[in-house]
Amino acid sequence: MITAEDVRSAASAVAGYARETPVLPAKRLSRELGGEIWLKLENLQVTGSFKVRGAINRLEALTEEERAAGVVAASAGNHAQAVAWAARRLGTAATLFMPAEAPLAKIAAVREYGGDVRLVDGKLEEAFEAALAEAGDRVFVHAYDDPMVVAGQGTVGLELARQIEDIRQVVVPIGGGGLIAGVATALRDSNPGLRVVGVQSEAVAPYAKGHRDSPSVPSTICDGIAVKRPGKLTGPLVEELVDDVVTVSDDETAQAMVHLLERSKQVVEGAGAVGVAALMHGRVKPAAEGSTVVVLSGGNVDATLLVEAIRLGETSAGRRMILSTKIPDRPGGLAALLSLVADLGANVLDVEHLRDGMDLHVRETAVQLVLQTRGPEHDEAIVEAVRGAGYEPRLEH
Amino acid sequence: MITAEDVRSAASAVAGYARETPVLPAKRLSRELGGEIWLKLENLQVTGSFKVRGAINRLEALTEEERAAGVVAASAGNHAQAVAWAARRLGTAATLFMPAEAPLAKIAAVREYGGDVRLVDGKLEEAFEAALAEAGDRVFVHAYDDPMVVAGQGTVGLELARQIEDIRQVVVPIGGGGLIAGVATALRDSNPGLRVVGVQSEAVAPYAKGHRDSPSVPSTICDGIAVKRPGKLTGPLVEELVDDVVTVSDDETAQAMVHLLERSKQVVEGAGAVGVAALMHGRVKPAAEGSTVVVLSGGNVDATLLVEAIRLGETSAGRRMILSTKIPDRPGGLAALLSLVADLGANVLDVEHLRDGMDLHVRETAVQLVLQTRGPEHDEAIVEAVRGAGYEPRLEH
Repeated sequence: MITAEDVRSAASAVAGYARETPVLPAKRLSRELGGEIWLKLENLQVTGSFKVRGAINRLEALTEEERAAGVVAASAGNHAQAVAWAARRLGTAATLFMPAEAPLAKIAAVREYGGDVRLVDGKLEEAFEAALAEAGDRVFVHAYDDPMVVAGQGTVGLELARQIEDIRQVVVPIGGGGLIAGVATALRDSNPGLRVVGVQSEAVAPYAKGHRDSPSVPSTICDGIAVKRPGKLTGPLVEELVDDVVTVSDDETAQAMVHLLERSKQVVEGAGAVGVAALMHGRVKPAAEGSTVVVLSGGNVDATLLVEAIRLGETSAGRRMILSTKIPDRPGGLAALLSLVADLGANVLDVEHLRDGMDLHVRETAVQLVLQTRGPEHDEAIVEAVRGAGYEPRLEH
Repeated sequence: MITAEDVRSAASAVAGYARETPVLPAKRLSRELGGEIWLKLENLQVTGSFKVRGAINRLEALTEEERAAGVVAASAGNHAQAVAWAARRLGTAATLFMPAEAPLAKIAAVREYGGDVRLVDGKLEEAFEAALAEAGDRVFVHAYDDPMVVAGQGTVGLELARQIEDIRQVVVPIGGGGLIAGVATALRDSNPGLRVVGVQSEAVAPYAKGHRDSPSVPSTICDGIAVKRPGKLTGPLVEELVDDVVTVSDDETAQAMVHLLERSKQVVEGAGAVGVAALMHGRVKPAAEGSTVVVLSGGNVDATLLVEAIRLGETSAGRRMILSTKIPDRPGGLAALLSLVADLGANVLDVEHLRDGMDLHVRETAVQLVLQTRGPEHDEAIVEAVRGAGYEPRLEH
């Protein structure tokens, strides 16, 4: 078991290395959903995620010999960055086994922190096996199934207890389960009536009721929490400490990312935004009294992936509509359609002529418009008006 | 004149309304440029920009009669949001004259804060004239040319003096000049040797050496600081208090926005990112000793505009390359080109067949590839390799 005392020891170990990250009131969400909702900005943690807390706590405990030998870890991203960073600060060497298909930006970041990267063909599982096989006498730093790591992640909870009054509920992403287990241990010690809710991506949700271990890991924007099965240590801890586990889809997560960008001005990766997605989509209700805190666990997403998430989020929120229709193939044909759309207050992001697939007759052409709108009702009004003007609009999804 | 005492009075007035925004170390910039660089996160201020500080300070000083009559302001964005928000909190009514072409999202935000929006055909200047003409007996809240407003903005400087040790240099965006005048007044009082640098968009830079008042306001991603001429009050203040004024381009600003998204996890609007752009592009050097603080003045940019800024930033940083070439029009022709590009480590974001404009012969077709790359050197290596394989690549800008 992990105790609140273990987390307090971890707090001394990580002080001076990890940052005490700020909290931010989520004004808009609080107004819309009721309750008092706060965000814990672990996206502003050094290395861009909470993982560095656990890594430092584990590496601080190395013996002289272990420190001299160096450590080994396997990860597709945040944990590798955290271990590489912590190793450099604590004067040891780190070898990081990463899947060859991990994002270039994450591999580059690990190298930048001085980590020795070994790329392994396949996915995280293959990287994990390679790391264990080659670790030899070196300490293998597990991303979650290690009591020192769980205690380190728990320091998020100690900070919260100091930063926010009367916390009644905490909403935390679950991948391996180390963060939620640590936070629940620390925070329930000071706030005994606390409700702890975990959030998983519905793509890979072994901790959720009715779900099973995932045979494989599908592609998801929540790649940071796509872990196939509960940990040996963290599985029972989550079972004991967590009141409820809910799931969210990639569409919902992308909408939460856009909300956080626009309203809270924060860049949060998919895995870090699932808590906000769960609130926005009614999977979790804010506490009626006292505060609800949502942990934004990381912000490691590069600009290109962010653009894709924004597109997905705006489309699924109905703020981006892709509409195709035939138009007369004569001068002014396209202009008439565009004027109509402009009068309805939609912003045209892209126009493309379609040559195939619309069953076109001679003297007909077809176009596809990408429109920025104010939301689902606006979308409907636009489709209605375009139809009313004699076009046959078709929506793409 | 504005004194440090005026700013201290403003601090009492805004306390409980405006947020004390956090500061964040800019680790990557500090490592690359030397010195110790900090960011002041006014993008996290209520209403999304520093403007609310000045608006509250001005509205707090209303007489009972003035409060009963309501206030008037003109703005294309942040100042309108700030006045609307402050008016609701301080129990008065606000009428906001805004250009009809102001972003939908900003108009919506002003209405959401309870402001009475009057849309005026034309630009900010026309909105300004309409507001003055229709204000009648009501107080007109100027966005910068008002000592109470300047003193309010100066509270950013008081917070900085408390938050960061040994500030030697502060870098602040200049639009009308209210923010930099207030910050310089407050911060130089506690840090007498302070160097104050202002940053303008080169599109509209009336405060910069060798620049003149701008006859019109061109389109720029720094719209929040596109002010045509120095203020009557703030002009002389900036002249006296500011050591240097530098300019940055839209390309440079977009790169700074991408840097802030990826490295600091912060959404910052163009006008708010010019200070970081000036540092990144050598217009300002970090202080050799002590700290340099860059004020990120606002974060009001919607997701769609953010996507455009990311595109501009990645393209101008050489991380996004658009390459066209003819290819043989036979099975496998495109696949061969794509394999070549993939082997070079570039990520294909888009492929489009070009039918016109490439002087195509029979049995030839042309494609345009949008590629994500690691930067200018990688770009060159790709072009070289594609040419070496017998293609005739052409770059789009």
